Amino acid sequence: MATTPQMHLNAFIYGAGHHTMGWRHPDSSADRVSDIAYYEELARLAEHGCLDAVFFADGQSLNREYSAGIPWLLEPVTALSAMARATTRVGLVTTISASFYTPFHAARLLASLDHISGGRAGINVVTSMFDTEARNHGMDALPAHAQRYERAEEFVDAVQGLWDSWSDTALVVDREAGQYLDPSQIRPINHRGKHFSVDGPLTVPRCPQGRPVLFQAGSSEAGRSFAARYAEAIYSVSWDLESALEYAADLRGRLESAGRDGSSVPILPGLVTYVGATAEEAHGKKRELDAYLDIEAAITQLNTFTGQDYFADPLDAPVAPLPPAEGFSGPQGRYLTVRRIIETKSPTLRELLGFLAAGGGHATMIGSAVEVADEIEEWFLTGACDGFNLMCPSFPAGLDDFVELVVPILQERGLFRTSYQGSTLRETMGLAKPTRTEPAQVRR
Amino acid sequence: MATTPQMHLNAFIYGAGHHTMGWRHPDSSADRVSDIAYYEELARLAEHGCLDAVFFADGQSLNREYSAGIPWLLEPVTALSAMARATTRVGLVTTISASFYTPFHAARLLASLDHISGGRAGINVVTSMFDTEARNHGMDALPAHAQRYERAEEFVDAVQGLWDSWSDTALVVDREAGQYLDPSQIRPINHRGKHFSVDGPLTVPRCPQGRPVLFQAGSSEAGRSFAARYAEAIYSVSWDLESALEYAADLRGRLESAGRDGSSVPILPGLVTYVGATAEEAHGKKRELDAYLDIEAAITQLNTFTGQDYFADPLDAPVAPLPPAEGFSGPQGRYLTVRRIIETKSPTLRELLGFLAAGGGHATMIGSAVEVADEIEEWFLTGACDGFNLMCPSFPAGLDDFVELVVPILQERGLFRTSYQGSTLRETMGLAKPTRTEPAQVRR
Repeated sequence: MATTPQMHLNAFIYGAGHHTMGWRHPDSSADRVSDIAYYEELARLAEHGCLDAVFFADGQSLNREYSAGIPWLLEPVTALSAMARATTRVGLVTTISASFYTPFHAARLLASLDHISGGRAGINVVTSMFDTEARNHGMDALPAHAQRYERAEEFVDAVQGLWDSWSDTALVVDREAGQYLDPSQIRPINHRGKHFSVDGPLTVPRCPQGRPVLFQAGSSEAGRSFAARYAEAIYSVSWDLESALEYAADLRGRLESAGRDGSSVPILPGLVTYVGATAEEAHGKKRELDAYLDIEAAITQLNTFTGQDYFADPLDAPVAPLPPAEGFSGPQGRYLTVRRIIETKSPTLRELLGFLAAGGGHATMIGSAVEVADEIEEWFLTGACDGFNLMCPSFPAGLDDFVELVVPILQERGLFRTSYQGSTLRETMGLAKPTRTEPAQVRR
Repeated sequence: MATTPQMHLNAFIYGAGHHTMGWRHPDSSADRVSDIAYYEELARLAEHGCLDAVFFADGQSLNREYSAGIPWLLEPVTALSAMARATTRVGLVTTISASFYTPFHAARLLASLDHISGGRAGINVVTSMFDTEARNHGMDALPAHAQRYERAEEFVDAVQGLWDSWSDTALVVDREAGQYLDPSQIRPINHRGKHFSVDGPLTVPRCPQGRPVLFQAGSSEAGRSFAARYAEAIYSVSWDLESALEYAADLRGRLESAGRDGSSVPILPGLVTYVGATAEEAHGKKRELDAYLDIEAAITQLNTFTGQDYFADPLDAPVAPLPPAEGFSGPQGRYLTVRRIIETKSPTLRELLGFLAAGGGHATMIGSAVEVADEIEEWFLTGACDGFNLMCPSFPAGLDDFVELVVPILQERGLFRTSYQGSTLRETMGLAKPTRTEPAQVRR
């Protein structure tokens, strides 16, 4: 048994990389973003590095300007079903929008993925953000934020009820007695709520993990409260150690208030890494990707975020600190992020645009493998997080760098597993298999 | 090039087999119906036999009595995504209910499966049959039959519009110019209909086949009219050659009336086969499975179907012919099927129960490989059908028998391919890649 606590690392797969312009690099995988073999290779690479899981976001509408970079272009559940068969240990986490799926479809797809993968499925429940997504599913616009979260809570209740509708031993296959299943071990859920009505039971037997691991991503008040009640792992956003510590303290407090063990839910901030044999080389990799930025578009965006005008500023001189947010009338979150990046990294204007282009306000570490490992260790050992959701600026190169250069150092330091100890995602993450909830507990 | 027309053969995968009691046989695969490796093996076996496709039905609720036998227990789109990577040529057809999926989800899942499989996806559009399914998706009951078909037509329009929302060359990936896709080649569909509202475009690039192959299964008036307008292949129900000829004539007439070539849409009746080295052996295989029937339950069902009382009749004596249907007040279709089975096969009561237990009213051929091939050839050459959707009473044994014993004979006779001539399901089936429809044509 490991004596040091072990961190968790997921590879957040995003098409040609999390740097919006990474696809323009000659070595990028931009030509393969609808090629399943490419995603299978990434999953194998993640497994080679003993990572907990690969992680897919999801959107239900096309961003035709691709202002967020080049996404994966396959549907994630089908892609993960194929990737499941190209790997044996790495977890497979997909984002599912509670705003567009019926609980029955979602529960069934995920239970099936869990069977197909031998117990490696995870579900990241989100509420979606864009009206363009709503308009692809018959709505005029998304419901209000609070209503979406109310719906998401009911969604999870119904989905978990469906996952629990079969006991682990309901499939008896007794040829002699002519009994295929034991009806007393399968029950309807008869969910009747404000947003959903679902009879059940599911058509899929209880899955190897009991329930796929439930992730949550979202840092709003409603998102945090949702996480405290339901999440088994959290994908968070923290630019620096200080804000990560604040977030962790807040979340752990909410977990305790919800009657849960504050340390039982891994918090995994997004992390963008540029890793080289030397710090020089790492910075060079960032510069190489930043060089593809459409400077005019990026400055226009920065001006919107800050209310400043950066068009006259020199690209390679340090950016002046931003005044406190009080004077800014636009969205505060993004403004504060930009302000914090300037404060903590003293970037040139070009570097600032690059930070924003890869991960936005997510933690960004640049340096030699040892330097990046040091910083990761600091975050982990100070309790700012339990690991990271890796947002490599480029694929496969950025993930390859991390797996080949940083992971071995974390392993040497006893901070990260050197092999998988179990076969399911729950076993890998040290999460208990949930007991089958009694129906009364899952009904609203 | 083949000079004789080539038939089409699909393997309709159904859990442990289409004989409701087949799972009780010691050699049955009943223990593996939620094991993806089992389905991969079946797909490889189908591919070994050069079959056009594997075919999954789908139901959105659990039949807790299992009166229809043991179904597959995985969700079909996820299962087929995995099976796609275990094979390279065989088609992968899933049933999708237009009553429960939004067109966007369905179009996206299928387009993704088509990419993952390199162009081997097919979609069998159905309207579902059970209120228990509706109650898993938030409805109290299914809409009326006519309304379901109206919805299904609109569903297909929207789904096809989404598949056509990207041109084949929309993904340009021009690194130099910084242009990832050509927006002029991607369009919304802005579908506004009675049942659906969908903006589009799809998030998935146009798939290798342009559109997955569209199957239809359903023999009602509305089903036939739907097939005539939309289907690219038809899964039909015909007990005997005579009724198959009638169905084919009717369907081909409807196709012509709809302005389509009457011979352009393969008609594939379901076909249950018991094949042995000798006829004796084949009948023995049927007897072995029929021996597992719950006689009391089966007779109770037969009494309901016919309005007769068979409880006093000897099991191993021939059943008396049924009077014309006019005197029967229950559902006519099922009555006529039973009447026809008795008329054409002169079965004992036990044999009759066995025919009903495997495939119900679907064509059933029993005999040596040569005898079964002869009968298949007769159906094919008289124009009663263009091939079959094979409903093997047991898996894998029944499919193995067909592939190893019958397929080689059909191949020797020049009736069936000896290798795949293309890589997509369309190429295998000889169906043209559809041209991208102009938006005006897909809107209602």
